[in-house]
Amino acid sequence: LLGHDLIGQRSGTVRRANLSAILRVVHEHGPVSRSELVARTGLTRSAIRALVSEFVAAGLLFEERAVPGGLPGRPSPVVHPRPEAAAVLAIEIAVDSLAVAVVGLGGATLERRRVERPRGHLTVDEIVADVVGLVQAVPVLAGGDVTLIGVGVAVVGVVRRSDGWLSMAPNLGWRDVPLGARLSSALGLRLPVQVANEADLGALAELRRGAARGADDVVFLSGEVGVGGGIIVDGQPLTGVAGYAGELGHMPLNPDGLRCGCGATGCWETEVGERALLRRAGRSPDGGRVAVNELLEAAAAGDPKTLAALDVEARWLAIGIAGLVNLLNPRAVILGGLFGRLQPYVARRLERELRRRALAAPRSTLRISPAGLGIDAPLLGAAELAFEPFLSDPASWFGRRGELADAATA
Amino acid sequence: LLGHDLIGQRSGTVRRANLSAILRVVHEHGPVSRSELVARTGLTRSAIRALVSEFVAAGLLFEERAVPGGLPGRPSPVVHPRPEAAAVLAIEIAVDSLAVAVVGLGGATLERRRVERPRGHLTVDEIVADVVGLVQAVPVLAGGDVTLIGVGVAVVGVVRRSDGWLSMAPNLGWRDVPLGARLSSALGLRLPVQVANEADLGALAELRRGAARGADDVVFLSGEVGVGGGIIVDGQPLTGVAGYAGELGHMPLNPDGLRCGCGATGCWETEVGERALLRRAGRSPDGGRVAVNELLEAAAAGDPKTLAALDVEARWLAIGIAGLVNLLNPRAVILGGLFGRLQPYVARRLERELRRRALAAPRSTLRISPAGLGIDAPLLGAAELAFEPFLSDPASWFGRRGELADAATA
Repeated sequence: LLGHDLIGQRSGTVRRANLSAILRVVHEHGPVSRSELVARTGLTRSAIRALVSEFVAAGLLFEERAVPGGLPGRPSPVVHPRPEAAAVLAIEIAVDSLAVAVVGLGGATLERRRVERPRGHLTVDEIVADVVGLVQAVPVLAGGDVTLIGVGVAVVGVVRRSDGWLSMAPNLGWRDVPLGARLSSALGLRLPVQVANEADLGALAELRRGAARGADDVVFLSGEVGVGGGIIVDGQPLTGVAGYAGELGHMPLNPDGLRCGCGATGCWETEVGERALLRRAGRSPDGGRVAVNELLEAAAAGDPKTLAALDVEARWLAIGIAGLVNLLNPRAVILGGLFGRLQPYVARRLERELRRRALAAPRSTLRISPAGLGIDAPLLGAAELAFEPFLSDPASWFGRRGELADAATA
Repeated sequence: LLGHDLIGQRSGTVRRANLSAILRVVHEHGPVSRSELVARTGLTRSAIRALVSEFVAAGLLFEERAVPGGLPGRPSPVVHPRPEAAAVLAIEIAVDSLAVAVVGLGGATLERRRVERPRGHLTVDEIVADVVGLVQAVPVLAGGDVTLIGVGVAVVGVVRRSDGWLSMAPNLGWRDVPLGARLSSALGLRLPVQVANEADLGALAELRRGAARGADDVVFLSGEVGVGGGIIVDGQPLTGVAGYAGELGHMPLNPDGLRCGCGATGCWETEVGERALLRRAGRSPDGGRVAVNELLEAAAAGDPKTLAALDVEARWLAIGIAGLVNLLNPRAVILGGLFGRLQPYVARRLERELRRRALAAPRSTLRISPAGLGIDAPLLGAAELAFEPFLSDPASWFGRRGELADAATA
């Protein structure tokens, strides 16, 4: 017989892992019956009962006795998350907007605000002040009805995840900004602030709650002023050694082509995305959202010059996607941001070029879909980022609710 | 108090995981003291003692009482692998050679043979027959002194790992070959036969035993007739959804360039690798190994045309590596095969181009090194592939030694 010490793992460690497994299922799938929890976690029925009761005692989950239906056997109680008992603050710093959201356990968006801002370079001080103002105006936070457990930030730049250091954000005109630390001190919430690239977070959100649900290997392609991306491998974001992975827009696909904002030549984002498309359609590359809307109207009206520009866009989209497909063999490529809006106009040419340019084997299982969460994907991904430490070890948060409530209203 | 059922995991599962953890350490690091095992696995001293004694009883490991040194305390016994008690057969099907090796637990190569073969397209039947002949000539297998637990195959083609299906090997002239099944029945060993792309396996070997040891995020770049590659993410091979990932040679880096063997245009391997280099140096692209050796001699002698060709090679190497660095943020890029041999001639230009073409952030932690295992990297990676099921669940192999010995001598 194997004693406890002999199997060599302390029961505390196992308990923490099992609490985490249960909470992840409830957070990612919403209300679930105890029977589904057994099926999804592989834990025993009695273990589920005991562990769920710990969450109930901590106020994070509640159980609802299922109404007996026509099926034989006792109905299984349904386990629900309490969204306000553990919520996160999500922030997005985009090129032409700022957004904040409060997202509760289980993924419910309790509050969301987005304000447009004129393009152009604002200082870090100015943006941080705007973010603080936006957060302070969120009623659900002022009321103290919500327990905040973390802050997640999506930013259009190259970010080191370990400490939220932003090394470069050409479209904001920033370089070497300790963004995590700056926001942490400006918000004064005494909560962990985690920062990541917006396209990486868009990928995470599409995987958990959008068009890539159920797929483990995904490339999320985000087209805006620049081109960003997030890569999911085996269900996990690919971060690389220092968190800088996923700069899809800077694959050199036309090495003798145009100069890129990053200093290199012929990066993918010199050939696709807002500026390249507007330029080819004979419009000002700096026309922004208004110009893009006009371009899409012209396309809908069948304007030949616009359709020709979209055809070239489709060709260059296919070239980059072919490289990613050959390299990563993903299940799905999700077209986010501008690329999602362009999809109806580029789909056919894209498909045709991919047949020519991507290897048959990885292409045979590939799906290309527009993003399911629209413009909010990075914001919702920031929320998922903020939930991560809590979901990994919920036990360590038990008993800290009073302390956290103080922090959130400080 | 938490009872066993309440923590919700069966001790059998934990025991299997812990046996696996111990065996992996001994296999990857060679002889280790019990104290090191405690440090590396996080298991308790008494658990290590009990679990190691199971391996000793099964004949897989042995313990050597350490000679007492000048240090206080009891010396910790040193745990050794028995290479012949669990060995694998590794096979490599390359463009101009075939190789087999027998590798024992702990990584010792017990036997290795490589035979050159003329380039040109042989049928699957011919190659399979040659492989069987080569295996039958290995004395250590004929003697029955070695217990074989699996077979790993490295092949220069696009392979689905789940069943060893080779969908395409342009340099062998093969398409849609059930290579795993063919070799399995031809060898008649009643052992699992696993097949993977040679560059993927080169990456695995360099990670475990070569130039990438200790790095978790690695790109292995293999230059031969074509260009292959293997990507390691977080210590694991990136396979993609169906095992086709890592076709680095088919990134479209010059979309209006030359036609590639895969049918697309401007793939990386149209610009780098043996053929491109020989062509630019004014030699026959089909000159093979002899022509490459002559080219390297001309480079060593300072021949201007050869050096100019190497300069262009370096530029295109940098373009592709820049894309991979921006995409994957690896710790190390390992130059294997031909690229390892070229390194002295291309290093400076490569470095200079990368400064211009790769983003500063992911570049700052990057290391570029020639492969440490030379031409045998894919063969040794095939051995690691074959060990994988055994390392993941060694307990299920206990008591099967008689059966396996029968299989191996069948």
